[in-house]
Amino acid sequence: MAQHAQPARGMRDIVPPEAELRRQVANRILDVYAAYGYEVIETPALEDLDVLVGSQGGDNEKLIFKVLKRGARLDEELDRGGELADMGLRFDLTVPLARFVANHLNDLPMPFKVAHIAPVWRAERPQRGRFREFTQCDIDIVGEASIAAEIELCTATIEALRQIGIDGCTVRLNDRRLLRAAVEHHLGQLDQPGAVYIALDKLDKTSSDDVAAELARAGHDEAGVERLLGTFAKAELIGPPAIQASLKGTWNALEVQGISVRFDPALVRGMGYYTGQIFEVSHPDLPYSLAGGGRYDGMTARFGAPALPMCGFSIGFERVCELVETNAFGPGRAKIAVTCLDDEELVRCLVLARAKRDGGTVVNVVRRARNVRKQRDDLEKLGYSEVIDAKTWAG
Amino acid sequence: MAQHAQPARGMRDIVPPEAELRRQVANRILDVYAAYGYEVIETPALEDLDVLVGSQGGDNEKLIFKVLKRGARLDEELDRGGELADMGLRFDLTVPLARFVANHLNDLPMPFKVAHIAPVWRAERPQRGRFREFTQCDIDIVGEASIAAEIELCTATIEALRQIGIDGCTVRLNDRRLLRAAVEHHLGQLDQPGAVYIALDKLDKTSSDDVAAELARAGHDEAGVERLLGTFAKAELIGPPAIQASLKGTWNALEVQGISVRFDPALVRGMGYYTGQIFEVSHPDLPYSLAGGGRYDGMTARFGAPALPMCGFSIGFERVCELVETNAFGPGRAKIAVTCLDDEELVRCLVLARAKRDGGTVVNVVRRARNVRKQRDDLEKLGYSEVIDAKTWAG
Repeated sequence: MAQHAQPARGMRDIVPPEAELRRQVANRILDVYAAYGYEVIETPALEDLDVLVGSQGGDNEKLIFKVLKRGARLDEELDRGGELADMGLRFDLTVPLARFVANHLNDLPMPFKVAHIAPVWRAERPQRGRFREFTQCDIDIVGEASIAAEIELCTATIEALRQIGIDGCTVRLNDRRLLRAAVEHHLGQLDQPGAVYIALDKLDKTSSDDVAAELARAGHDEAGVERLLGTFAKAELIGPPAIQASLKGTWNALEVQGISVRFDPALVRGMGYYTGQIFEVSHPDLPYSLAGGGRYDGMTARFGAPALPMCGFSIGFERVCELVETNAFGPGRAKIAVTCLDDEELVRCLVLARAKRDGGTVVNVVRRARNVRKQRDDLEKLGYSEVIDAKTWAG
Repeated sequence: MAQHAQPARGMRDIVPPEAELRRQVANRILDVYAAYGYEVIETPALEDLDVLVGSQGGDNEKLIFKVLKRGARLDEELDRGGELADMGLRFDLTVPLARFVANHLNDLPMPFKVAHIAPVWRAERPQRGRFREFTQCDIDIVGEASIAAEIELCTATIEALRQIGIDGCTVRLNDRRLLRAAVEHHLGQLDQPGAVYIALDKLDKTSSDDVAAELARAGHDEAGVERLLGTFAKAELIGPPAIQASLKGTWNALEVQGISVRFDPALVRGMGYYTGQIFEVSHPDLPYSLAGGGRYDGMTARFGAPALPMCGFSIGFERVCELVETNAFGPGRAKIAVTCLDDEELVRCLVLARAKRDGGTVVNVVRRARNVRKQRDDLEKLGYSEVIDAKTWAG
């Protein structure tokens, strides 16, 4: 029986011309980041499970694709309660970066400005338009404790989006410490603020009433919840003055540069590892964020290195690619196809084609198909403006 | 206790500036392939195990990293002899391409010329310079039964290597059908020629005597083995005349174009899926091949599609990157760094930097570190030609 031809569940193939557009988008973004002084790195797709688990990655840790141990007697492992898996596919690029920084600490400049674009994997329930493999495009600044990091990351990210043709974005700003202060001010001291954050995170998708009901069901004081959501609705700043001031510092610095920015007191970000300012990029045409990030000071300490200041911003690559027009980067190269009858013609044309290719033209030298008309149609669909008989072609 | 900071066993981090060089090499290769009319695609890193296993991938099938089933009670699975894993990381790009072609058959032009660059994973015993994650850069022609495919793939691959500065390569050519004919001519009909192929594959690493001894130990007629290795040493063509003629056809077509080409009767290629001509690219400075490929007609039939002609060539990306000089693509952009005392200076410089960045200069705007000298040294190591005090900078 034939094997099915579909990709694995929740995965997808990327066909032409989308894959080429993705390459151009990635290059354009990385070129902008390079112009800001971010250096590219790569990390492996697979990390030891100990690196990924316990990284405060929030729900994403539950979504790790785990890789079976090699060489082990798996039944014996199970019998003695051992682990069947010892590695996993990364669910983000932030945790691997912290490990990377700890691993190469002595060789890295400080501050270290780094760009990292690569696929990540999460075993989410497959649904329309959401895939289990997707690409993140991150920049991070390591070793910068001041809001110089936040300001530059936001500036560079907005500029990268602009350079791929995405204008009109707004940076939504919050600070994990202000969020916590607001929650505790109205609901009292909490041992596990995580559940409250998860409820609040839904404010951009569901109604304020639904969120209030969920918090009430969880046993929180109804009047307190009402006051909390009220301050959120009014975008009131609450919390330690120094933290308010630093948030305003980022805000002003972006506004002065003409970047649209908004304080969003209900912005949560899913990951547990954030320690300070957090941000997302919204676009008026989209119900979800194009990019997100924040400060996650100290993550390097898990890996035996000093607790360095770290701050990062991640573009959701698939999401921005959906917004990029096919012709965003100009009309592309001229494309001509030359169809040959035999190998002799083929070789002659391959030699002739060289100069034209060096001149920037795509020259597709192919054997003439039996169905000449279908071949011509196929080539025209691929953007070939001319389909030439080799006999009449002189380069 | 701190988590270790090293990558998982057999994996590696790629630090600056190597990662940027890799990006440039990949882009240059893909630009050449685009100029030949190859269209880029992407396939997921994870495939259903059924796709990878039984794909005639040879020993590589034993090296698959398998991903633990999600949601299953694993102890129950084990008890009833079920599988613990349902997906695996691809070990090459050829098997996923055959699945891709079968999946998208109605939407693809024929012949379909395709480029595919991506990491693959093999759980090989880690050793110096060999990693369990590495990148392949493939081109394939689907739907071309004639040697027009072999000729163009070899031409484009050699041209891609040239464009990244690697000259002086030789294409080594063979045909699986000639290999089989030679082996059976001297050793008689074989049910399982695979073991003989594996022994012969060592001829470029070990002595002819060692290979002869291995074949004799496996019970093959010593005189026959001697004759077989003798014809190999003399590079004599043996086998069906039509197949000899088609090999000569590829050979001539490459030679006419000035490409160095050599018949290598002992060239095997590890994969079981090859059906016709096979090739590798050698470089005089290297003991191993830079690229390899061949014809693997019919692989699409496994996936319920017609048995299409397919032929491909794969560049070992890490191997070519080792040969590429750091400055292969010119001196790169000018880089200046501007160090700021506070956020106000930072914002002023971020705005000023825009025009300079648009002009092609890398402008790294950073907070001045406490240790000014170390910061300057770090920046100079990264290639910054000027480190400027923001106070004195006017853009």
